[in-house]
Amino acid sequence: MVASEVRALFAVASRPEVVSLAGGMPNVAALPLDQIGDLVKDVVSEEGPAALQYGSAQGDPVLRELICDYMTLEGVQAGPDDLIVTVGSQQALDLITRVFVDPGDIVLTEAPTYVTAINTFAAFQADIRHVGMDDQGVLPDELDHALTQAAKAGRTVKFFYTIPNFQNPAGITMTAERRARVMEICQRHDVLIIEDNPYGLLRYEGEPQPTLYSQGDGNVIYLGSLSKTLSPGLRIGWALAPSAVRAKLVLAAESAMLSHSTFNQLVVRRYLSTFPWKEQIKAFNSMYGERRDAMLGALTAMMPDGCTWTRPEGGFFVWATLPEGIDAKAMLPRAVNERVAYVPGTGFYADGRGRASMRLSFCYPTPEQIREGVRRLVGAIEGELDLRDTFGPAMNRPTEGSQAPTPDLP
Amino acid sequence: MVASEVRALFAVASRPEVVSLAGGMPNVAALPLDQIGDLVKDVVSEEGPAALQYGSAQGDPVLRELICDYMTLEGVQAGPDDLIVTVGSQQALDLITRVFVDPGDIVLTEAPTYVTAINTFAAFQADIRHVGMDDQGVLPDELDHALTQAAKAGRTVKFFYTIPNFQNPAGITMTAERRARVMEICQRHDVLIIEDNPYGLLRYEGEPQPTLYSQGDGNVIYLGSLSKTLSPGLRIGWALAPSAVRAKLVLAAESAMLSHSTFNQLVVRRYLSTFPWKEQIKAFNSMYGERRDAMLGALTAMMPDGCTWTRPEGGFFVWATLPEGIDAKAMLPRAVNERVAYVPGTGFYADGRGRASMRLSFCYPTPEQIREGVRRLVGAIEGELDLRDTFGPAMNRPTEGSQAPTPDLP
Repeated sequence: MVASEVRALFAVASRPEVVSLAGGMPNVAALPLDQIGDLVKDVVSEEGPAALQYGSAQGDPVLRELICDYMTLEGVQAGPDDLIVTVGSQQALDLITRVFVDPGDIVLTEAPTYVTAINTFAAFQADIRHVGMDDQGVLPDELDHALTQAAKAGRTVKFFYTIPNFQNPAGITMTAERRARVMEICQRHDVLIIEDNPYGLLRYEGEPQPTLYSQGDGNVIYLGSLSKTLSPGLRIGWALAPSAVRAKLVLAAESAMLSHSTFNQLVVRRYLSTFPWKEQIKAFNSMYGERRDAMLGALTAMMPDGCTWTRPEGGFFVWATLPEGIDAKAMLPRAVNERVAYVPGTGFYADGRGRASMRLSFCYPTPEQIREGVRRLVGAIEGELDLRDTFGPAMNRPTEGSQAPTPDLP
Repeated sequence: MVASEVRALFAVASRPEVVSLAGGMPNVAALPLDQIGDLVKDVVSEEGPAALQYGSAQGDPVLRELICDYMTLEGVQAGPDDLIVTVGSQQALDLITRVFVDPGDIVLTEAPTYVTAINTFAAFQADIRHVGMDDQGVLPDELDHALTQAAKAGRTVKFFYTIPNFQNPAGITMTAERRARVMEICQRHDVLIIEDNPYGLLRYEGEPQPTLYSQGDGNVIYLGSLSKTLSPGLRIGWALAPSAVRAKLVLAAESAMLSHSTFNQLVVRRYLSTFPWKEQIKAFNSMYGERRDAMLGALTAMMPDGCTWTRPEGGFFVWATLPEGIDAKAMLPRAVNERVAYVPGTGFYADGRGRASMRLSFCYPTPEQIREGVRRLVGAIEGELDLRDTFGPAMNRPTEGSQAPTPDLP
């Protein structure tokens, strides 16, 4: 179902007249493509025999060193032996699930959470349980309660999966105080934390928060990625994991694909060692920050009473919730008719919740397109409000929702 | 264990004084690197926004069309919707195993077979059973018997995995008559065939044999790869599968990595649509054919009495068997001491067989290095023969075998 939803999104979002606030695609066109073209040419002409050859399952050692340098910007201290390079951090998540999860094991996540994480956990037949959030991040008491209840029931909780910075889809960042409490709770219950941090360096205001990894005692697997700060088309992610876990991940990666693309690894190696990549991240932050401002400004100016939304300090996403009685999934055909797309909230829960909510991305469209997209979205919402006020809430009406595309992307 | 063995191989084979007849690395240095450098530069500067972006889990549609053109050289007729692009054919094998194999299911393979296929089947807890081969390919009566016995025992056989052309590691090609019998047997038992064909176009003599896929009725999943005919560093492989299976593979691929590298797919797309790639394969065949001749000539000229070996018509590998009482794994430290490396046969069986055999690769070293490598190998064998004649067969002596590296590569 999810693959068909993604295809539906591609079909809709690629129509030029539609403003897509749906996909989480970074704006790679902003990269200096001529310079990167020269860089990839040099990789082939100067290092071709290595770049075009098989590599090791753990990943290129020099790239791993450069990734360690990159992670120091997040306050993470690690050595090149501590990590494995993966096909985006998605593959890391898949390998971790493959190594840890037996059918029926409990996996805890924030609510809402990243849709493809849900799919991966479900593919390995995990029992996915959500823990609520507020604007400070995951709710510690609820996390503690979930772990206590599982222990009482004799159930195994394999890990707690979290995206602490600019969460996908909620746009929420876990506060430092909340991080400390989450760490204390997970340590007390002896539960592993999977810290997924693809957006951490894309901060447009406020102060960076310490990673969970740097506060842990070997109980955190940290997932990083260059998909948002360089390019998702190169598929360079990684997992930083305790030694025994890492060895298992390397074996699983070898089974999964022998080795990642040496070519891509050497391209990224050259990029990180010769390119002013910190300046490039600053340029991305300036661009995305402007887009976030455009979206928050448009929402404030135009959204009808009764709508609420989050105010992300970075990343790509705003999470919006509609007035009582409006169903975001049922509304999608109307919105597409108004030439705007978003992702209905239900995809971000394993348990059917989220009907009143939607994820709005501001990463790909321009500020002008974002404002126009919000204008169209408001048109759709107002249409639904009229319908609600005339015929009652969507929940009580037959809807086209089940036929509608409910697209998502990373 | 296998990952450490691969690392051991890299450590040994990278010492310049060692002739490695171990790894299955194609000689990518023979590619016109400057032209490929220009090609990758053009991909970034002309198609960068697409190349550096996320793609679909099934793979780029234009690349899939070009792969269909490529497969017509093997006599395979298929459309772009019929296949999924994977991270080498290794990922295809992994996804297929993930989709089909439940713990305890039987998987049949040739004996010997590709080491990483064994690892993948074992990772999903398959019950791996081998079917013997002769110089015509797999033994049909033994295959029939294995399937009949499994059915009698009420056991599920998920598939028969075969590398029909220039098999890794045996170098054997299944004859047309044998293919027809294998097809008849598998159809009669209603068992799926996984046809792994990375080497098919690398033929140095004799006539191409029809693929099993082209003779099947939807009971074959065909795996292809550009790792040997272009570059393994780009990780472009594919699976051609019946519609219901393919849909499952696409979902599994989405969970495993979201999408393959769009960059690599667009590089290969441009290579297959603008480059004289058929001429490049002819050039590879001329080079590898010369290397095969060097190896077969050296073996004929130098190997001691009692050694036997296969005579591949293509591909990368010769399978050699040592005289009675000599153990290839136990001999490896002596061989490395003589500055030659190979892969002991035991890695190519799930059941501990193969101690008398070894895989010899002729793809990477030059003809001169191959001759020198065989000379050194013969020195090691003669040393072991002396030891055997003085102290009895290796099986009865304590050996260093368990400490020795037993490297392998694709």
